[in-house]
Amino acid sequence: MDLESRAHAENPDELRLWLRLLTCTQLIEKRVRLGLRTEFETTLPRFDLMAQLEREPHGMKMGELSRRMMVSGGNITTITDQLVKEGWVERVDEAGDRRAWRVQLTDQGRAYFHDMAKAHERWIVNAFETLSLKEIQTIHKLLHKIKLQAQDNLHESLIDNLAENS
Amino acid sequence: MDLESRAHAENPDELRLWLRLLTCTQLIEKRVRLGLRTEFETTLPRFDLMAQLEREPHGMKMGELSRRMMVSGGNITTITDQLVKEGWVERVDEAGDRRAWRVQLTDQGRAYFHDMAKAHERWIVNAFETLSLKEIQTIHKLLHKIKLQAQDNLHESLIDNLAENS
Repeated sequence: MDLESRAHAENPDELRLWLRLLTCTQLIEKRVRLGLRTEFETTLPRFDLMAQLEREPHGMKMGELSRRMMVSGGNITTITDQLVKEGWVERVDEAGDRRAWRVQLTDQGRAYFHDMAKAHERWIVNAFETLSLKEIQTIHKLLHKIKLQAQDNLHESLIDNLAENS
Repeated sequence: MDLESRAHAENPDELRLWLRLLTCTQLIEKRVRLGLRTEFETTLPRFDLMAQLEREPHGMKMGELSRRMMVSGGNITTITDQLVKEGWVERVDEAGDRRAWRVQLTDQGRAYFHDMAKAHERWIVNAFETLSLKEIQTIHKLLHKIKLQAQDNLHESLIDNLAENS
């Protein structure tokens, strides 16, 4: 059944837009999950974790890693342990702090991630291939407006909620 | 850290668009989850389950309900049991099949859901309030193109995958 047929309220345009946004995101995410599983025998949380590490040549602490993760699902400590065991990720001591350590990609992990990132890029490009460059720019701009407003709304609600509970 | 700064490959326009789409979806979903929790003491999977039932006055079987769920997370049987216990949902015998039953909203559940749906509609309308009607229509149309392509891509990959494994 089509998600979008669920929009049936007083503001159908906005609700339909929301369901369409959600549908598109879910379809693309499903394609990415399928590709990661069948071509790389991995999962989206594992890919996401390695993507975060790839951007920091000197690795990062677990807390920072956790904050940056885009994908929920999967315990970050468990995933890190697995990736360490498989040789894609390593733990290094934090200079000047005997009890702290950072996690970073191994050379092998970096090469493996680059292969996945290339495939990921292909899946994403394919998803948008019916759009012209101009259409991509248009939707990008409109999503920017939505993003700013959605950020404001979320922050405002969080503050209201804190105020009510203090 | 901003998600979008992660786009750094050969096809930055498409990757940036994907990350922006994901960011918008996640921001709006977070607002919805927060509102459901603070204003209704409920969760998105519970709301989603009741939304599915609301569309079927005569309820549906668990398998059908499961297929229609938009939100992952939360075991559907567990959620249904909770909602039955709280009086929002009831199980009814399936006519002509002594071992089967359907689930449907109670009158009380329907009224409760309508309150939540109104609030939900308000959060969604707010997320898009900086867009003109014309902009909403434009983005809706562009997302439609993305949806069709993403559907095709996913189906194709699923079929390829089945063929390889048979």
